[in-house]
Amino acid sequence: MLNYFSSDFKLGILGGGQLGKMMLYETRKFDIQTNVLDPNAEAPCSISCNYFEQGDLMDYKTVLEFGRKADVVTFEIEGVNVDALRKLEEEGIKTYPSAATLEKIQNKGIQKNFYLENDIPTAVFQLYKNKEELLKEIQQGKRKLPFVWKSTTGGYDGKGVAVIKTEGDLKNLPDAECIAEEMIPFKNELAVIVARNPSGEVKTYPVVEMEFHPVANQVEYVICPARIDAEVTEKARNLAKKVSEAFKHVGLLAVEMFQTKDDEILVNEVAPRPHNSGHYSIEASYTNQFEQHIRAILDLPLGNTDSKVGGIMVNLVGDENYTGEVVYQNIKKIMKMPGVTPHIYGKKITRPFRKMGHVTIVNEKISEARRIAEEVKNSIKVIAKK
Amino acid sequence: MLNYFSSDFKLGILGGGQLGKMMLYETRKFDIQTNVLDPNAEAPCSISCNYFEQGDLMDYKTVLEFGRKADVVTFEIEGVNVDALRKLEEEGIKTYPSAATLEKIQNKGIQKNFYLENDIPTAVFQLYKNKEELLKEIQQGKRKLPFVWKSTTGGYDGKGVAVIKTEGDLKNLPDAECIAEEMIPFKNELAVIVARNPSGEVKTYPVVEMEFHPVANQVEYVICPARIDAEVTEKARNLAKKVSEAFKHVGLLAVEMFQTKDDEILVNEVAPRPHNSGHYSIEASYTNQFEQHIRAILDLPLGNTDSKVGGIMVNLVGDENYTGEVVYQNIKKIMKMPGVTPHIYGKKITRPFRKMGHVTIVNEKISEARRIAEEVKNSIKVIAKK
Repeated sequence: MLNYFSSDFKLGILGGGQLGKMMLYETRKFDIQTNVLDPNAEAPCSISCNYFEQGDLMDYKTVLEFGRKADVVTFEIEGVNVDALRKLEEEGIKTYPSAATLEKIQNKGIQKNFYLENDIPTAVFQLYKNKEELLKEIQQGKRKLPFVWKSTTGGYDGKGVAVIKTEGDLKNLPDAECIAEEMIPFKNELAVIVARNPSGEVKTYPVVEMEFHPVANQVEYVICPARIDAEVTEKARNLAKKVSEAFKHVGLLAVEMFQTKDDEILVNEVAPRPHNSGHYSIEASYTNQFEQHIRAILDLPLGNTDSKVGGIMVNLVGDENYTGEVVYQNIKKIMKMPGVTPHIYGKKITRPFRKMGHVTIVNEKISEARRIAEEVKNSIKVIAKK
Repeated sequence: MLNYFSSDFKLGILGGGQLGKMMLYETRKFDIQTNVLDPNAEAPCSISCNYFEQGDLMDYKTVLEFGRKADVVTFEIEGVNVDALRKLEEEGIKTYPSAATLEKIQNKGIQKNFYLENDIPTAVFQLYKNKEELLKEIQQGKRKLPFVWKSTTGGYDGKGVAVIKTEGDLKNLPDAECIAEEMIPFKNELAVIVARNPSGEVKTYPVVEMEFHPVANQVEYVICPARIDAEVTEKARNLAKKVSEAFKHVGLLAVEMFQTKDDEILVNEVAPRPHNSGHYSIEASYTNQFEQHIRAILDLPLGNTDSKVGGIMVNLVGDENYTGEVVYQNIKKIMKMPGVTPHIYGKKITRPFRKMGHVTIVNEKISEARRIAEEVKNSIKVIAKK
């Protein structure tokens, strides 16, 4: 049996951002040695790992050589060189999630086709090789507005996605392979994280709900458990499990879904890693998503995914009017509120809408957590030094 | 206002053992920069801090020069040079807990006298300058057996403490300043952690109970909440608060107490830092003791000390028959049990009774946690590679 704890075993992590940073809390807890690769020398993971390397995650040779120094390789961001992962697998180095899994997810066109092939409900879509093809179909009247435009590659945190309502909206689209997707008039956006280990053990986290700002139409709160009825909960959790089984991934799979007006559940997209929608789990769950990811990829028994208490997560993004050395205004004020924990990712410079951290609010009563979350949201501001 | 988060502020930590390691999870979470000093180059804190220095914690010059590089200095072990702390305070560098607090605690003779002066109930004791003085009083019949012998300095984790039942037990005692304390026929050993910040805000954690092995007479489980009645709980929590107020410490104060057969509460000893009896808080409390310590010494608002769920802690100590490269036998087995989290401190070599880690068991029902804790205890073994 492989011994991970206080041993010579090495876990290689591609990407050293905030997800990696939170993963390192868990490898430190278990005293598992880690190597981290990131293009930024000052990445949040540049401390807390045992070995840090600066390098390009999309470069074949860099990823291959980095991976060879580890016993198991994982990633905290999808934008990594898949060919290098495949080569590492050939050489006997386990990469979890596998190259085959990542490949099906990295490109949104392939991902959407995968849903069709596996009978997984998803919004109707059409794939276009480039912008010209898309525009032609619109001119010919085959593609009606409005629709959701998505670049097949490179999308992350809302980048590479646009809602096209008028012909004017088409102007700023980049020339890229893309999909056009019908707009889903959804009641709720939901997410479920599924963990799966190489032995085939599977566990799903409770359904979370993204609550949107009524005017700005941006996610304001991730709420666990989702305030939806038991039947919809069951449906969402089962669909997430089905998606997980189709991908046969190892590690976490965050499944984002729409609950339509008719209580149909459609898969929007997936991420094969710890996910923003699971951050609440650090404070609220018996086993947080980062520990669960480590357990899963090392074929350890999966932990209990139940919650101890209700949890709400609020993202801390840079205020749109500030760029410069970050200051977390009113952080003391929010730390006075019960059950409030700020997580600061460690980025020195704030920019408009940059993800700088998150705040978790836990409470036995989800309604009370929701009330406090609003106070948090109205108090803290990510600004820059004058 | 001082800005700690993603700023140039530096916290200096004296000692880089497991307590420091768990403190660093919290400084990383808040992105607070840390410097750590420890005599061992491979101390658990040698990674995860921003700057690590190898050096003697009892050496005046080493501690002074290390402290000068920080804005606030704290410690995770009492055995540090107090004169250097005092000098740092004179130079305007905040040290929390203060030199004055540490001084009253480092020497058990001074600590015990402090209880008398402050009307804090404690076991009756007598101070002896050396072994000769003690032996003389015994010969003269002034000191009766049995009693508890404690070295006034250098005691840690049960070292420097002996129960003297027969004259034969006297033989192995070192020649040192010591106290002889009456044996307390206690019903329970209890502990309460009190947090206090420079603004004077005070919060106490729930009372925990040490459950002893019925035969071996060693602590097996730390249980939160203690299974004692409400009146005793109240008494213990109030006494801990009184002790905290007497010391006027800043940071945490772990107050260990005896519940006598008559439900009297006596203070045994205190530790001005995160404490073994508070490890359960990482998984069970709204605010764990390490985050609370950071909040307290930086004069941030103290967090909620309530528990989300019941928690039990089991120490992982080296099996008495093994010395060598550590292996955690059956760790997979315990990770299968619900609500079980192992913490591995990162010491490569196990020795008989060496503290190598701990395991937390959380559950809504403390009786169920207790049942699982026993399974954990009966399963995991800290052995060495063959």
